[in-house]
Amino acid sequence: MYKIGVLLSGCGVMDGSEIHEAVITLLAIDKAGMQSVCIAPNKDQTQVINHLTNKPQNEKRNILVESARIARGNIKDIKSINPKDLDAVILPGGFGAACNLSSFAKDGASANVMPEVEAFLREAHKLKKPIGAICIAPNVIAKVFGDKNIELTIGNDQGTASNLEKMGAKHIKKEVDDIVVDHKNLIISTPAYMLAGGPAEVEAGINKLIKAIVELIKKTEQVAASS
Amino acid sequence: MYKIGVLLSGCGVMDGSEIHEAVITLLAIDKAGMQSVCIAPNKDQTQVINHLTNKPQNEKRNILVESARIARGNIKDIKSINPKDLDAVILPGGFGAACNLSSFAKDGASANVMPEVEAFLREAHKLKKPIGAICIAPNVIAKVFGDKNIELTIGNDQGTASNLEKMGAKHIKKEVDDIVVDHKNLIISTPAYMLAGGPAEVEAGINKLIKAIVELIKKTEQVAASS
Repeated sequence: MYKIGVLLSGCGVMDGSEIHEAVITLLAIDKAGMQSVCIAPNKDQTQVINHLTNKPQNEKRNILVESARIARGNIKDIKSINPKDLDAVILPGGFGAACNLSSFAKDGASANVMPEVEAFLREAHKLKKPIGAICIAPNVIAKVFGDKNIELTIGNDQGTASNLEKMGAKHIKKEVDDIVVDHKNLIISTPAYMLAGGPAEVEAGINKLIKAIVELIKKTEQVAASS
Repeated sequence: MYKIGVLLSGCGVMDGSEIHEAVITLLAIDKAGMQSVCIAPNKDQTQVINHLTNKPQNEKRNILVESARIARGNIKDIKSINPKDLDAVILPGGFGAACNLSSFAKDGASANVMPEVEAFLREAHKLKKPIGAICIAPNVIAKVFGDKNIELTIGNDQGTASNLEKMGAKHIKKEVDDIVVDHKNLIISTPAYMLAGGPAEVEAGINKLIKAIVELIKKTEQVAASS
């Protein structure tokens, strides 16, 4: 049974993981007969947003503790998980992927990625583990792998795409239910709520992303077995 | 396009709505070509639980504000919505359905239901709107409609079932992916995480619940049209 890391960034579209994208990812992994391994950084969120008013709340919340809501308590600190024990890793979107995992929301193309997240993704990539990135999460991938000519999509938003290209990625415009598969770098992306009008459209893209990840895992296994 | 009220009770299995059940309900409604209308009471949660440690946190969170995370901000105070503007209403589970919407977790068969929730459900029932209840949420239905010989399921947990029967309901044991349809009272229930091992099993039951709700809406419309 393949184990798929799901890297969360909080619990809520405006300051953490986009909840629909995260749950639909867990659902698609379960329906494919695979096991989810939820992980998150054990650090405070950069902000807490009231999702009713869209205004900041003057309080602290921890990314791992809030992500545990989506994971029903079954979650680990990213620092305690070695990518070699996983078969792939997926980053759902939500603003947390651009204000917690990285500073992309504030800094654009000159964003930094949280050190433990960068170290984890570099190791996963070195071990040829496929990496999926949903919605705005490709910003993290573009920053970490900016020197590898990676191909990805965040849909069709010009400003965001332009920043990803400044970071070294090649952006490919895609419809809401489509994916980009970078076969060389084993990176798969889908626009989800960068374009989606509701959860059914999100699911269409994520189902394709999961299918592509399974194919890449199998292909990598075959190459390893024959070499 | 049918409008389906989704009554949330916070954001997280241990002190609010079970997130997977809530999102899978929104997904199933969207895939059936219907519109979700998220609603919640504008009151403080009775507790805030750290989902990593399973221990209480000494802070206040508001049910409507936290539910807005699941609804991506698109949510209304239950007091501002008239059941006549909806075609059905669904209550996802999670401990919030037993510690916020009602006091069932603390008081068992002598539980109280939050007044605005009770008034909303009574009006919906009077107007012959089907009501769906997932996981532990049937406790709210059993309390409000305890005098109507309603039939429902929470799976097979003896202690919980016994309390529901003390409140006047008839409990029917069901497997994780099954539903009980009370045709007389237009009430549909499914066990979800009372029994489920993961989101795929939750989805199997919720998909049946949504299908049954659509059939009940259509049947009620036909009866109304022919009378």
